[in-house]
Amino acid sequence: MQKLIFTNEVDRALANLIEEMKPAGVFFLADSNTRPIADSLNRFGATVIEIAAGDDNKNLTTLSAVWETLSTSGATRRSLLVNIGGGMVTDLGGFAAATFKRGIRFINVATTLLGAVDAAVGGKTGVNFLHFKNEIGAFAPADAVIISTRFFATLPSAELRSGFAEMLKHGLISSQETYRRLLAFDIARADLDALLPLLEENVNVKRTIVELDPREQGIRKALNLGHTAGHAFESLAMERQRPIPHGFAVAHGLLVEMVLSNLLLGFPSEELHRVAALLREAYAPAPLLSCSDYDALVELMRHDKKNASRQQINFTLLRHPGEPVIDSTVNAETIRGALDIYRDLLGQ
Amino acid sequence: MQKLIFTNEVDRALANLIEEMKPAGVFFLADSNTRPIADSLNRFGATVIEIAAGDDNKNLTTLSAVWETLSTSGATRRSLLVNIGGGMVTDLGGFAAATFKRGIRFINVATTLLGAVDAAVGGKTGVNFLHFKNEIGAFAPADAVIISTRFFATLPSAELRSGFAEMLKHGLISSQETYRRLLAFDIARADLDALLPLLEENVNVKRTIVELDPREQGIRKALNLGHTAGHAFESLAMERQRPIPHGFAVAHGLLVEMVLSNLLLGFPSEELHRVAALLREAYAPAPLLSCSDYDALVELMRHDKKNASRQQINFTLLRHPGEPVIDSTVNAETIRGALDIYRDLLGQ
Repeated sequence: MQKLIFTNEVDRALANLIEEMKPAGVFFLADSNTRPIADSLNRFGATVIEIAAGDDNKNLTTLSAVWETLSTSGATRRSLLVNIGGGMVTDLGGFAAATFKRGIRFINVATTLLGAVDAAVGGKTGVNFLHFKNEIGAFAPADAVIISTRFFATLPSAELRSGFAEMLKHGLISSQETYRRLLAFDIARADLDALLPLLEENVNVKRTIVELDPREQGIRKALNLGHTAGHAFESLAMERQRPIPHGFAVAHGLLVEMVLSNLLLGFPSEELHRVAALLREAYAPAPLLSCSDYDALVELMRHDKKNASRQQINFTLLRHPGEPVIDSTVNAETIRGALDIYRDLLGQ
Repeated sequence: MQKLIFTNEVDRALANLIEEMKPAGVFFLADSNTRPIADSLNRFGATVIEIAAGDDNKNLTTLSAVWETLSTSGATRRSLLVNIGGGMVTDLGGFAAATFKRGIRFINVATTLLGAVDAAVGGKTGVNFLHFKNEIGAFAPADAVIISTRFFATLPSAELRSGFAEMLKHGLISSQETYRRLLAFDIARADLDALLPLLEENVNVKRTIVELDPREQGIRKALNLGHTAGHAFESLAMERQRPIPHGFAVAHGLLVEMVLSNLLLGFPSEELHRVAALLREAYAPAPLLSCSDYDALVELMRHDKKNASRQQINFTLLRHPGEPVIDSTVNAETIRGALDIYRDLLGQ
């Protein structure tokens, strides 16, 4: 069972975990942004491995360098890796740990909201390969995850809003009440103390689903809400060398998929307007500019890992907030129609 | 549950499995030696991925090429990889499958005795990294393994003897009877029809142990018998650019560890003479030449993945045939003494 610790006393939580786990050797992994946090937490004589920040560096070259440091610094099967950072660090570090000597223990210390709510929990690890996100990876849950809002105070507002999109997704698939509480929270001017209990509720939604279905055979696919369209937005933006934050792509992906849900499953249309208003306020500008992008987006959706074949595009949709419907296959024509409505909603 | 199929009708077994599994796309992985076998089995329109043969190529570069072909040939999460070859192909292919899109299904078709008895079953996958064997990998059992003696007819005798050393190990840890039956079998002039039932019994020993303890927390360590010393022999031979077959290294490792078992646990000394006689007949020349090699060997044993720390060298030893004792730590002095006795037994 994965241990989730919500606390602002990160030092003590980490010390307790390490005392419990009795590792033979502790290694910290950080990127250039989180290196100061790693150094400030290092009361354990840990070897700190620093990698370059950014999703561009979430690749085989960086992974190989992490393996090499572990190997040459004498890490054994009983060593512990502590990944300190956002999703890039916990994804890559988790995969490094899962595959070094066929698997050593690891802890994630999430330093971003997106990392806390999305990447640090649930065991999806991996790196990008060729042009594909997370193409190489493993299902490997961290032994423990430490989540604190203490690190968020210095984050850019865009980072907080990016993470909040994943919280909104968890709200939409879990219940009308959780979803409403999130819509009432002002993420553009976030109160971090008020955020911690919302975050705890939210991460536990994810944890419950992951425990029911760790390898994504069924209900875990609900967590893909917003991500089929979102990944396509993200990849297209990257191809055009105007990258957008993951959470912004997901926020817009959520609206596209809520439109599909409305068209195919009668999802209430007033919710589309609510979320469109939030997007205009907190997730501008919209990533999609014109209908000449539709073909490229549909092609990207076809390449999504979640598809059983290239002929079918697979979505998680919603009947209502709290009622996800997994494995909904949608044809290209309907997707194009939904993109039209999505642009109308945003007033594009 | 991993499916083990012992048959000489490999074509039919493979067709049945594929029909059952209903994959979206079939890929075959073979090396330059087993490519003809792969082509002859390919009634499925499978894309055949060919890699260079040999343990030297069991590395990240080859792995990356396999991932790339899967990726660019449109493999999805529902595709199937069929690894056709010895341990090098099933280790690397198993790891490729375990990590491509976080894991696709795979089947191993063992084409060597060593592969059948050692690598194809049990879920240890991986590649070599830096100078370390299987430094990067995962525990990922094949969905099914097909084992046939049909492919062994064309194997060099040294290959057969190499695999037989692993069979002997399974005999030693399972029971006096199994061990005796193996000593009575003439591997230097092997009757392949008589070998198939021995092999089935033998692989089932391994399967039973692996199912009890898939991640090697306890009893699975019994399977490491012969391997702490064996890997050291193998690595030393490689460093000196006079590589020896894995099974030859294991055969000699078994004798070293039987000597340690005799010194520390009273393992019957007459068995040492029996196995020494077999080694002189079927596993000559011995890999160790003089006592000036002892330090290098002990150092290599210290780096073994199985050690909890560099201070302790961990062995699986035996009280009797069929009575393994895992987690036996031995000091360097005792190992040196055992190496002396081992050389005496071989008349060196």
